[in-house]
Amino acid sequence: MTPPLAASAGAADILVDLFVVLLAAKIGDEIFKRIRQPALVGEILAGVIIGPSVLGIVSPDETLEVFAELGVVFLLFWVGLETKLSDLREVGTPAAFTGTLGVIVPFAAGLALGLAIGESTATSVFLAAALMATSVGITSAVLMGLGALKTRAARTILGAAVIDDILAMIVLAVATGIAAGSGVDPTEIVLVTVIALGFVGFVALGGTRITQRWPKVFEAPRFSESPLLPAVILCLGLAAFAAQLGLAAIIGAFLAGMIAAETKEQTAIEAEVAPLYAFFPPFFFAFIGLEVDLSEFTSAHTLVLLAVTTVLAMATKFAGAWLGARSLGRREAVVVGTGMIPRGEVGIIVAGIGSSTGVISDELFAVIVGMSVLTTLVVPPILRRLLAEPAAAEG
Amino acid sequence: MTPPLAASAGAADILVDLFVVLLAAKIGDEIFKRIRQPALVGEILAGVIIGPSVLGIVSPDETLEVFAELGVVFLLFWVGLETKLSDLREVGTPAAFTGTLGVIVPFAAGLALGLAIGESTATSVFLAAALMATSVGITSAVLMGLGALKTRAARTILGAAVIDDILAMIVLAVATGIAAGSGVDPTEIVLVTVIALGFVGFVALGGTRITQRWPKVFEAPRFSESPLLPAVILCLGLAAFAAQLGLAAIIGAFLAGMIAAETKEQTAIEAEVAPLYAFFPPFFFAFIGLEVDLSEFTSAHTLVLLAVTTVLAMATKFAGAWLGARSLGRREAVVVGTGMIPRGEVGIIVAGIGSSTGVISDELFAVIVGMSVLTTLVVPPILRRLLAEPAAAEG
Repeated sequence: MTPPLAASAGAADILVDLFVVLLAAKIGDEIFKRIRQPALVGEILAGVIIGPSVLGIVSPDETLEVFAELGVVFLLFWVGLETKLSDLREVGTPAAFTGTLGVIVPFAAGLALGLAIGESTATSVFLAAALMATSVGITSAVLMGLGALKTRAARTILGAAVIDDILAMIVLAVATGIAAGSGVDPTEIVLVTVIALGFVGFVALGGTRITQRWPKVFEAPRFSESPLLPAVILCLGLAAFAAQLGLAAIIGAFLAGMIAAETKEQTAIEAEVAPLYAFFPPFFFAFIGLEVDLSEFTSAHTLVLLAVTTVLAMATKFAGAWLGARSLGRREAVVVGTGMIPRGEVGIIVAGIGSSTGVISDELFAVIVGMSVLTTLVVPPILRRLLAEPAAAEG
Repeated sequence: MTPPLAASAGAADILVDLFVVLLAAKIGDEIFKRIRQPALVGEILAGVIIGPSVLGIVSPDETLEVFAELGVVFLLFWVGLETKLSDLREVGTPAAFTGTLGVIVPFAAGLALGLAIGESTATSVFLAAALMATSVGITSAVLMGLGALKTRAARTILGAAVIDDILAMIVLAVATGIAAGSGVDPTEIVLVTVIALGFVGFVALGGTRITQRWPKVFEAPRFSESPLLPAVILCLGLAAFAAQLGLAAIIGAFLAGMIAAETKEQTAIEAEVAPLYAFFPPFFFAFIGLEVDLSEFTSAHTLVLLAVTTVLAMATKFAGAWLGARSLGRREAVVVGTGMIPRGEVGIIVAGIGSSTGVISDELFAVIVGMSVLTTLVVPPILRRLLAEPAAAEG
């Protein structure tokens, strides 16, 4: 019998999926904390285990993707709440260099790799684009767990991630044009770039200035209850707007957090957003694991390609970002270089676009997903060693 | 250009939908509080306005439906957190009568109405089923907002809603069998009934007894952080399980709340669930509004049918529930009778099933949706008058 009163049968089945994903992520989280490993690694591996690769209980679908997206949106909103615009401005120069070099070096390496293994230009550009962009969600979660979000290295990573994302958007627009065979319209690229820069600049400067001047904008008497919903609406609005402009939604969420951080309600908002921050991000981490398909990795060719791509992705991102952050001093440059390595969901998304336009083969898609997950799994333990006094348990 | 880094284009568009729905609901909420009307009515009307009927900005889709479902799930989880099993046991007899008579009378009236207007038996049974079931989410929100959840009338409504839902499930199983032309398998019906009763009884008695005996089951040292995720996992798990059994997911969520209420962590869980309770339910209320299609109500025939159906739905549910609750005294019986009137999402879901199996015409579907929304909009102001000292602002 179908479940008559549980909304549609589809919605009832999605409740099961949400339950299984959250339960598995929580179990992975608890196990990894107990063995003193980063919890998010446990959540990603939980996703691999319940996903199509191993048990096959849950498959990634659009609804889970929305929960995953909200997971990283609330993650970056939270990071934004902990960040002042002046914190970022202080590290402006190294962040700009880190973001730029951290994109150029892996992109060049990816392009060379693609052409070296005999792929077409279009395919090589996509491979390069997938190697290029950093997933700041992963590193943010680790830094936050270690209480290291206020360090200069962390702020440099956050600033660099914004620049990284803008450059990635431009390159991906170019790559999509090449793949579609429609060529590249320079006017459109310039226009899109100007709009993206304008959005970030206007929101970051204007938004924080508005809340600095009217810090009571979210105050209780204006709204009948807590400042939670106004803050969440601002977060979703800027995230959606950023996504519509072609930027990552998390850039908008991060900016929204920075704006809310300037209000008098910052502490209240933090306390109320915390449960959303506990509820949604496990879907983000588990979803990364769900997208892995281990059955693709059976041939030696695929495994070698995965190893080469992963090593290249790690070495070139580290080198580029480290080079950009040198002015911070040796130790901090190493933290920045390491923190920029994870490709997480961003590499997977680029591979997905390439796959849907037909320029990325199934094998290459699996390799890029594997590279994205491996770069994501490797970094948290290293970052902890680099940064931490032995910390007990964190993201 | 498509949004390259914002997950899939689909997920990026859904961010816009979530933003628009939440913003509209919040605006409706604030306006209605200011004019001293129930906020949830404002949220439903906001859904009508942004939906296909008026502005057409947002259409109901599966992802929004999941958010709506989670909205009512967290609503009833919250209600469960405020309810002790002993509270329900005290009102067991009137609740049983209210639930049973409150289903039988509207069902009989709906059947008679269907046959009277010349519909087939299958169609008439579906119309009757849509008239039969109460949406306890709406009334719960109003009672909670008035701080009246501990009154005998409120507890009777909650107990009756559980019985109402079990009966509704049985009737709907029969109706679906008739509509499919496959007839009714009495063994299956008995089996399903026993399983449903067993689930409710076992979870309500066993679950609360377990947490009474081990009240520290969710205590912090067992889990590295707050008791939120274990509690939410319990809620989603029982909701999903109830839905798989054919019951409403909210029955499982309500039972989960009752179980969590017996733990030592009840206060901590309440504080942490509050933001989820602020975030999700607006999607539930707005979604009801989104499903209204005003363009169907153009002919006099449809409008008359809507008026007759709505009056019949209100009068018969009130009469049945009032009769069942008479033993509580006149005033409380009136509160119970009124509180059981809203059909909300339940009527819409039944109509949707009938429509998808072809026995409910487009006109009748629109009428049932209209009846569900009207019974939902009418009750909150009446309940407030019946119960309240002039309360300032609530759900």
